[in-house]
Amino acid sequence: MCFTKMNKILKIDKENLTATVEPGVVLQDLTLRLMKEGLFFPPDPQSFLGATMGGIIAENAGGPACVKYGVTKQYILGLEVVLANGDIINLGGRTLKNVVGYDLIHIFISSEGTLGIISRAELKLNPLPKAKKTIMAVYSDVAVAGESVFRVLENGVIPDKIEFLDNWVINRIEEMMPMGLPKDADAVLLFECDGIPEAVEKETEQIVEITKKYGAVDVRVAKDQAEADKYWLARRAGFAAVFGKAPTVLAEDVTVPRGQIPNLIKKCKAIAKKYDIEIVILGHAGDGNLHPSILTDVNNKEAYDRALKGLDEIIESTVELGGVLSGEHGIGLEKQKFFRRVIDPNVINLMKGIKQLVDPNNIMNPGKIW
Amino acid sequence: MCFTKMNKILKIDKENLTATVEPGVVLQDLTLRLMKEGLFFPPDPQSFLGATMGGIIAENAGGPACVKYGVTKQYILGLEVVLANGDIINLGGRTLKNVVGYDLIHIFISSEGTLGIISRAELKLNPLPKAKKTIMAVYSDVAVAGESVFRVLENGVIPDKIEFLDNWVINRIEEMMPMGLPKDADAVLLFECDGIPEAVEKETEQIVEITKKYGAVDVRVAKDQAEADKYWLARRAGFAAVFGKAPTVLAEDVTVPRGQIPNLIKKCKAIAKKYDIEIVILGHAGDGNLHPSILTDVNNKEAYDRALKGLDEIIESTVELGGVLSGEHGIGLEKQKFFRRVIDPNVINLMKGIKQLVDPNNIMNPGKIW
Repeated sequence: MCFTKMNKILKIDKENLTATVEPGVVLQDLTLRLMKEGLFFPPDPQSFLGATMGGIIAENAGGPACVKYGVTKQYILGLEVVLANGDIINLGGRTLKNVVGYDLIHIFISSEGTLGIISRAELKLNPLPKAKKTIMAVYSDVAVAGESVFRVLENGVIPDKIEFLDNWVINRIEEMMPMGLPKDADAVLLFECDGIPEAVEKETEQIVEITKKYGAVDVRVAKDQAEADKYWLARRAGFAAVFGKAPTVLAEDVTVPRGQIPNLIKKCKAIAKKYDIEIVILGHAGDGNLHPSILTDVNNKEAYDRALKGLDEIIESTVELGGVLSGEHGIGLEKQKFFRRVIDPNVINLMKGIKQLVDPNNIMNPGKIW
Repeated sequence: MCFTKMNKILKIDKENLTATVEPGVVLQDLTLRLMKEGLFFPPDPQSFLGATMGGIIAENAGGPACVKYGVTKQYILGLEVVLANGDIINLGGRTLKNVVGYDLIHIFISSEGTLGIISRAELKLNPLPKAKKTIMAVYSDVAVAGESVFRVLENGVIPDKIEFLDNWVINRIEEMMPMGLPKDADAVLLFECDGIPEAVEKETEQIVEITKKYGAVDVRVAKDQAEADKYWLARRAGFAAVFGKAPTVLAEDVTVPRGQIPNLIKKCKAIAKKYDIEIVILGHAGDGNLHPSILTDVNNKEAYDRALKGLDEIIESTVELGGVLSGEHGIGLEKQKFFRRVIDPNVINLMKGIKQLVDPNNIMNPGKIW
């Protein structure tokens, strides 16, 4: 087995709506190949140009389209995994339903490489939607934008994407590349609906109506795909815009129950004021997964200390609001101290027991998570 | 903690589209309560009148609506579990994304009670669809019906249900209670589309067109909800119809990749002929999960032996076709010998390691699975 060459799409099964891939396949390549067959793999992490399927599975990657489609684990039917003892095991299979003993596949998904090496995966695919439509709702109050998210969903409209950009991020994007985003808005929400044309048309109408009713000061429906692409390119540029603007950026991945988004945004604003730090917010509002980012400088000790205190308080507030410290990036190295603080010690012990069972000599991605 | 009284719906959170329930809540009661709020919990095992949420989670229950909505595990955000050592642990949470250490929640879902006792669950809900439509497609060849399933899906139409009934089942239902099913059909497929009215209308048109193109001899769209209810009542009566007609019924739960449904049906017909046994087929064709049932009599040794041989060959054929031995019923007591035969011994060892780790004295539902 030569892992460096394991980048083949082994099979696309149109009848079963599945694909078999090696772990080195880059998501962008898979997406283009599937497009030719009228299919797609819904998870869409922003790193899709370089992210490999092995990494996407090991991190249970998300992205904007999770509002409607869910995360990576919902699209993994089977995995071949190389264990620390050299055994190669096959988990799951190629079927949509499978209740045959313990559902081990999910321990390896999001294990961040610490339990085994994924050497092949069986993916569940969807038929490409026939139509898409993008809507931008503009807000003069960031918390009102947060409320619009669950107002749309509670009305039974499920867009595939609901993304959030605050005023600071909007302005940095516009400086970097003018995109037509409203620079004086406190926040914007970008919605995308997909599906059959008649449904997309109707959902778009409903989103316009609901966002206006719940406080959007302006709502624009992209007139064509070119305008829609411009908005989504701006959204993708969001992180680059943030990272270019400070020597150090502490980018978080906190996730709260959707109804708590306005409260999380208010908390972040209060924390920024309390510690005199700049916190900018963007993220996947549709599933409560925001990326509040603190702009700071690791070489300015006094400022960096204030940033770390603010970071601590963002995590604490998230947990108080019923949320979790990572929605899609995982624990890795950076979040280990928070992990131990917020997770029940009995649960940590159980996780450690599994690590010990599967990889007793700790040779799988040592240092990560633990 | 008194488990016998643990049958309360603790919270319905409309903003977050979640509910918190105790394990004794009966699915039917939950469904009626959620309906008042315009919400629903998508998994719909046919035992919904008596099935409790604890059991539904511990078996990762399915049902007809999994084609579009997936199975139980996709609707469980958090679990409180009582472990064998008395520890009470909380797994997951109330958020849609959560990548914080190993995803232990899925080991308990479908563990059939052998790892711990589920004492509370946080459910993900969907808004109730605004419209539904039922279509019955009639076939003179059972394998052609099987093909229609993936022809509809590969065209990008995703109904919430695609159910299959063969000629024998149709006739037993009609004897039991005349429902207007076509008694001379070799098989029928029942489709249900749900969503916003415009989309449902369009999808219904497409299903009619595709099923006609791929060999249905007759396609009927239910003219109103009363006619639709009649068809679905007939489908639900299917199992009762089967069980009433033989002293012993060996009902299987095999699941194949969708494209293999016609082959599985052909195999079952050949096996029936080879062993001179009666095999009737009904099930959730939309996700490849069929319930071929052998009519026999445990007290007639010669006949029962032939039935057991046929059963063995159904399981073997399923595995050869890339399928699994249980889609939604689990291993329990009956499928233990097949479980050991078809699952990789390394995987079995890993499962046993987890059982040993969590329940070393084997006090949790002893005898099941293992």
